[in-house]
Amino acid sequence: RRGDMSPDKRIEELKLVLPEPLKLPPNVNLPFSWIRVRGNRAFVSGHIALNADGSISEIVGKVGAEVSIEHGYQAARLTGLAMLSSLKRELGSLDRITAWLRVFGMINVAPGFVQTPQVINGFSDLIIDVFGEDCGDHCRSAVGLAELPFGTPVEIEAEVEISGN
Amino acid sequence: RRGDMSPDKRIEELKLVLPEPLKLPPNVNLPFSWIRVRGNRAFVSGHIALNADGSISEIVGKVGAEVSIEHGYQAARLTGLAMLSSLKRELGSLDRITAWLRVFGMINVAPGFVQTPQVINGFSDLIIDVFGEDCGDHCRSAVGLAELPFGTPVEIEAEVEISGN
Amino acid sequence: RRGDMSPDKRIEELKLVLPEPLKLPPNVNLPFSWIRVRGNRAFVSGHIALNADGSISEIVGKVGAEVSIEHGYQAARLTGLAMLSSLKRELGSLDRITAWLRVFGMINVAPGFVQTPQVINGFSDLIIDVFGEDCGDHCRSAVGLAELPFGTPVEIEAEVEISGN
Repeated sequence: RRGDMSPDKRIEELKLVLPEPLKLPPNVNLPFSWIRVRGNRAFVSGHIALNADGSISEIVGKVGAEVSIEHGYQAARLTGLAMLSSLKRELGSLDRITAWLRVFGMINVAPGFVQTPQVINGFSDLIIDVFGEDCGDHCRSAVGLAELPFGTPVEIEAEVEISGN
Repeated sequence: RRGDMSPDKRIEELKLVLPEPLKLPPNVNLPFSWIRVRGNRAFVSGHIALNADGSISEIVGKVGAEVSIEHGYQAARLTGLAMLSSLKRELGSLDRITAWLRVFGMINVAPGFVQTPQVINGFSDLIIDVFGEDCGDHCRSAVGLAELPFGTPVEIEAEVEISGN
Repeated sequence: RRGDMSPDKRIEELKLVLPEPLKLPPNVNLPFSWIRVRGNRAFVSGHIALNADGSISEIVGKVGAEVSIEHGYQAARLTGLAMLSSLKRELGSLDRITAWLRVFGMINVAPGFVQTPQVINGFSDLIIDVFGEDCGDHCRSAVGLAELPFGTPVEIEAEVEISGN
């Protein structure tokens, strides 16, 4: 746990890679922002797992079928890194995040796969590790969806509280 | 794009039809409000596509099966018009909306349908057209659900920021 | 309807049982809080139906298959009681809740089950009964998910507005 360490420094310490912005497949247009800031609120659009260069991660498909629970956990962690990358790009520094608030974790499930909390823990564990237990705490749901865009196994949206820049 | 035009005027200019409130099927009771206002926040309940008279749109079923992606886009646009109608009824004027914040787009998908962003673009394109790129910008998720009420192909909930009346 | 009665007193009057905290199955770790409070906002994690001792309710499975619509309604009501229990534990008193804001109701559906609003009414009816129509009013979505954790038939997350303690 990081105690009072700055999240930006903690990311360096852990040698975490924040990926480039999502490289959209051809013919897909997304007419909205990854992060929507108003006052001290930052709304985070649904993010997915990316490679370092911003291409969509090769972990694709339904958890419980093509994707194991361990790879699902890894996809949730990569989704967190993509989200942190968007937040850092928008806010300048992750140190401006004063509290995580709401996390909504969506899993692309095969029929009968109900271990959804264990998958989204890949996201929550990362957030707690980088922001500590006070700032990083959050409310959460982790639920099984029928399909997710691009066949991604995990999509997560969130809201965080921020301080002025 | 509308620049500084008032959203109410822009709706007239585009000759958009804001439908009557949802006419519920018999024996369905919804014990909550379409719009919940507290301070400068307006929470928008899940809306669906309506005809001008408030009856449920004939675009019904699963996108990727009975409903094409083009009709799904149209259903998302109609869902936006139903939402604007509820907001105008509650707020008196859409000009009181100072910022769109969060949009959560849910699609009733056939197995394997993953082009969910293209469907919800029918909603986002409308909002940007009416409110402009600053006020109308929003964070968004667009995901595939197993079933939606009344077999509707699209349901969308949202939060917007408003000014005093 | 309670008029101006305190929610805490109304719960006594109705002899409602607020269950113990969820007893997690073995090997499940949830690294987040049931309630996340910041300022006058309380975010409520996804809750499920519990027995009085905090064990998971025996109402398990998909609504429209193993679970009838009436048992789904009952599961939604039990989910509400679990949520009120978490809120009372965190806030000290339910009287601190000044307004319900957002309710997101998720139903574990069998294919073709679209009567999702009638199920989540089990939650909304409880909230209105305990908090009255002004404080208890809320925006809501009620939608069909592919799978929910532990095979629970209903999961609900929410946000409420609170006053200082």
